[in-house]
Amino acid sequence: MTKITILIHCKDQPNIIASVTNFIAQKGGNIVYIDQHVDTEQNIFFMRLESEFLATAFSTENFKVLFEETLANKFDMKWRIYSLEIKPKMALFVSKYDHCLYDLLGRYNSGELNLVIPFIISNHLDLKPIADSFKIPFYHIPVTKDNKEEAENKQLELLEKHGVNFIVLARYMQIVSEKLIHKFPNKIINIHHSFLPAFVGAKPYHSAYKRGVKIIGATSHYVTQELDAGPIIEQDVTRVTHTHSINDLIAKGRDLEKIVLSNAVKLHANRKVMVYNNKTIIFS
Amino acid sequence: MTKITILIHCKDQPNIIASVTNFIAQKGGNIVYIDQHVDTEQNIFFMRLESEFLATAFSTENFKVLFEETLANKFDMKWRIYSLEIKPKMALFVSKYDHCLYDLLGRYNSGELNLVIPFIISNHLDLKPIADSFKIPFYHIPVTKDNKEEAENKQLELLEKHGVNFIVLARYMQIVSEKLIHKFPNKIINIHHSFLPAFVGAKPYHSAYKRGVKIIGATSHYVTQELDAGPIIEQDVTRVTHTHSINDLIAKGRDLEKIVLSNAVKLHANRKVMVYNNKTIIFS
Amino acid sequence: MTKITILIHCKDQPNIIASVTNFIAQKGGNIVYIDQHVDTEQNIFFMRLESEFLATAFSTENFKVLFEETLANKFDMKWRIYSLEIKPKMALFVSKYDHCLYDLLGRYNSGELNLVIPFIISNHLDLKPIADSFKIPFYHIPVTKDNKEEAENKQLELLEKHGVNFIVLARYMQIVSEKLIHKFPNKIINIHHSFLPAFVGAKPYHSAYKRGVKIIGATSHYVTQELDAGPIIEQDVTRVTHTHSINDLIAKGRDLEKIVLSNAVKLHANRKVMVYNNKTIIFS
Amino acid sequence: MTKITILIHCKDQPNIIASVTNFIAQKGGNIVYIDQHVDTEQNIFFMRLESEFLATAFSTENFKVLFEETLANKFDMKWRIYSLEIKPKMALFVSKYDHCLYDLLGRYNSGELNLVIPFIISNHLDLKPIADSFKIPFYHIPVTKDNKEEAENKQLELLEKHGVNFIVLARYMQIVSEKLIHKFPNKIINIHHSFLPAFVGAKPYHSAYKRGVKIIGATSHYVTQELDAGPIIEQDVTRVTHTHSINDLIAKGRDLEKIVLSNAVKLHANRKVMVYNNKTIIFS
Repeated sequence: MTKITILIHCKDQPNIIASVTNFIAQKGGNIVYIDQHVDTEQNIFFMRLESEFLATAFSTENFKVLFEETLANKFDMKWRIYSLEIKPKMALFVSKYDHCLYDLLGRYNSGELNLVIPFIISNHLDLKPIADSFKIPFYHIPVTKDNKEEAENKQLELLEKHGVNFIVLARYMQIVSEKLIHKFPNKIINIHHSFLPAFVGAKPYHSAYKRGVKIIGATSHYVTQELDAGPIIEQDVTRVTHTHSINDLIAKGRDLEKIVLSNAVKLHANRKVMVYNNKTIIFS
Repeated sequence: MTKITILIHCKDQPNIIASVTNFIAQKGGNIVYIDQHVDTEQNIFFMRLESEFLATAFSTENFKVLFEETLANKFDMKWRIYSLEIKPKMALFVSKYDHCLYDLLGRYNSGELNLVIPFIISNHLDLKPIADSFKIPFYHIPVTKDNKEEAENKQLELLEKHGVNFIVLARYMQIVSEKLIHKFPNKIINIHHSFLPAFVGAKPYHSAYKRGVKIIGATSHYVTQELDAGPIIEQDVTRVTHTHSINDLIAKGRDLEKIVLSNAVKLHANRKVMVYNNKTIIFS
Repeated sequence: MTKITILIHCKDQPNIIASVTNFIAQKGGNIVYIDQHVDTEQNIFFMRLESEFLATAFSTENFKVLFEETLANKFDMKWRIYSLEIKPKMALFVSKYDHCLYDLLGRYNSGELNLVIPFIISNHLDLKPIADSFKIPFYHIPVTKDNKEEAENKQLELLEKHGVNFIVLARYMQIVSEKLIHKFPNKIINIHHSFLPAFVGAKPYHSAYKRGVKIIGATSHYVTQELDAGPIIEQDVTRVTHTHSINDLIAKGRDLEKIVLSNAVKLHANRKVMVYNNKTIIFS
Repeated sequence: MTKITILIHCKDQPNIIASVTNFIAQKGGNIVYIDQHVDTEQNIFFMRLESEFLATAFSTENFKVLFEETLANKFDMKWRIYSLEIKPKMALFVSKYDHCLYDLLGRYNSGELNLVIPFIISNHLDLKPIADSFKIPFYHIPVTKDNKEEAENKQLELLEKHGVNFIVLARYMQIVSEKLIHKFPNKIINIHHSFLPAFVGAKPYHSAYKRGVKIIGATSHYVTQELDAGPIIEQDVTRVTHTHSINDLIAKGRDLEKIVLSNAVKLHANRKVMVYNNKTIIFS
């Protein structure tokens, strides 16, 4: 049995759902998941399906060709089709903070994540022992004012060599370049330590403390060129009081950051996220 | 244009989705919402659709007949089809507490609720002024040990006379009879002032205080014969500390109760709830 | 028995707590509540006490005089002392939205609020029936471009005549003047329909929708001259998804707004809020 | 400078606060934290203080003697006094699940926890590599039907030898004996994977799934002889829907369990928990 996931978006128009479900049925597929969303403001239709094909002769590549010819052209669809047995490859970029790294690797180890981690890149050596203890290759690529381009080329080389599908900045603390963003559009996941759009930029916990907010948050989003302004994948918050110092906020925030980032990674790896016009549709 | 909502459940089997969407397309309908769920443990398929029919000749009653003949029989479906222009009628049962009543009537007044409230029944006169100020008929039906059957008959008479579709016990404080439950299966919504299944029965805030829990909750569920054991529609919780007295819990609980009950009412009135085997499927 | 509440702040220095508790003991008082906070960044000490005095001869006014002479001068304290039997007077300013008004008046009616509402002011007549049904005087003071000063003078006259202690803007929708703010410093409570400091200003739900946030919020704060930048008293949030339209956000937001505003009102009326340097200390 | 923490409880009576704060002032201490609570139902007074003593001659042991003679006897207090420089020793008991272990050790490593972990005990070898990578001694003490007493004696020997102050069962999956509970009263912290008192005992996620709850939780509590009925230290919850399988609940629950347990450990290690009559007072 082959199981595939289909993601579609196009202009909203009648009969899309019936046409797609009919097409799948004709090809011998049984739909086990369907969800759709219409953005009525922009008049865009989004759909996610999972379908099982029992025939041993079924070929995902053939299906893609027929889908393109028969349906995608007719409705002018943008689409992606994934075979469930192929796990996406995720590169981890870290710096000195370890809480997100521990959280992701702990889940990876226990089989909770439906993905492969070919390597970890860091501009510092601090977290190498953690990578070692989880037996994941660790590449130390220092980044300075002067070697930015060189460092980036090393990163790109590794990403290409391993066929990486998406990148997770697990508190990487460096601004990634336009070039990398263009190579991985809506495929670089960042964790920002505030409830965006509040407290964009550096030192959000300091700003939250200064403003005297009663709730702090964390936001995982895709990286775009504008800082902390990319499509939001997941957010969570926790209560704070006047008794919490900045260090308390930082400590409480770590718990938010790791859970929010891991949830975003799972959503992305399970192909449950679509992006349109800088906003996400998150399927269940 | 006619807009209808379709709710289906049946044994899980291939091609249900394609068959239903195809059937609707053939009848000239455009599907604007579809969501489904498969309970893999019990092998049951659930689906909710919304569809628009532009033809002026479209008749919901005809559609129901064809649906039954063509699809329901084939797949052995249980189904319900609603026309969106027909708003469900909700009877409100209250006693002495006013917070849920104010909350529901405030929303009703502002047009937030997609339903009609033909009348309010109470075993006490305390809340009559509120009903009056919202201009909703108020029936005082006292309930004592000796007149239970008589009181219930009066209630049933009113319910039938007004063609009531579902009943909301807005802190009614009386146990409703088997007879009423049978007449309104999964159509009587109660609000229980605890996080069920913790603290079933009377005085849950007292029990929560005694146990020293750090979070209290409220639960809205359909009434079944077993006390506080019916299918759960909605729950919410809030944090408490050792500083909260029983009265504080009661006050904080009121805020939970009114929001949770109103949310459950909205889900039911918008036909987003299906019940199977004492559990709910809540569509988005 | 007389019960008083004492709020103090001053430069942090040794022996404040021992001195104050000792002073109260010497005057025959029994402390039933004490909490303190030190802002270590600004080196400011804050304390809240509740004390009971059994002696029939006890006079709060005398106590205040002695407190000022003995303690306040010594430690250079800012202080406020309240007698619990005197309930604060709260003026309600409303416009056309009714959800916060219903929520506050429902609580007021049930005895949950430790305050007196002498009147409601509105620039529109829409909510007069609600005020009438709760039997609270309603003053219609229209506000136009041309009559701003005149309207404000009428407001001030009413506020002074009734000895109002604080003002609650229950979705009043008008910017209050500098003059009013100066007369009621940290005594005008507003509800802003966003998670501040995100989405300051008009139409926050529209901005939240546009940004694609996954959580929306509401913030109650004291009004200062800078728009939506005053000390935050209380905040709460709720999850939203891509399926929620702007109208859905507005509807969900109403539930947040009313609960958050009512909580802020209770904190203020129970003298549990201190303000320092545009931030609040919220005692338990 | 010496910093001490004082925890007191006794029958509620006048002048406790003034007497204690005065006593500390006389001994040259400056109070930097004070909080108290009165359980009005049981008429019990609870207080927590932190005090700094600048005198180099200050001796915590002397202070304790004077405190006992002067204050504790007078008010019939139960009390505990801790010197802040002495970190409590925590033994970790684990079995096969690694998420709580990773979370605690990650925090321990980053300096977030104010305690010492002398060793980890497990009845299985599965988690030894994690203990090794964090360089913490790991003792494998298998537990079978036949060797329970022997295993327990080995545990007790280790606990005594290292002067362990409290024990954390990080998903240990074994019922600890009466003997151990008596040796560590309110000093054994367990994490139960449900929102207690709902779903006591084995397989709570299965029970939650069966009941169809919309929110699941985790509870950290002190171990007493009655299963899952000890004083609750911390609880948290998260939303679930009908789409979540039992395995989904287990996965979501892991995130709750690790955060709730770590929070409970921090509260205990920072001496912020008092227990009375099977309930906790949690100081801020």
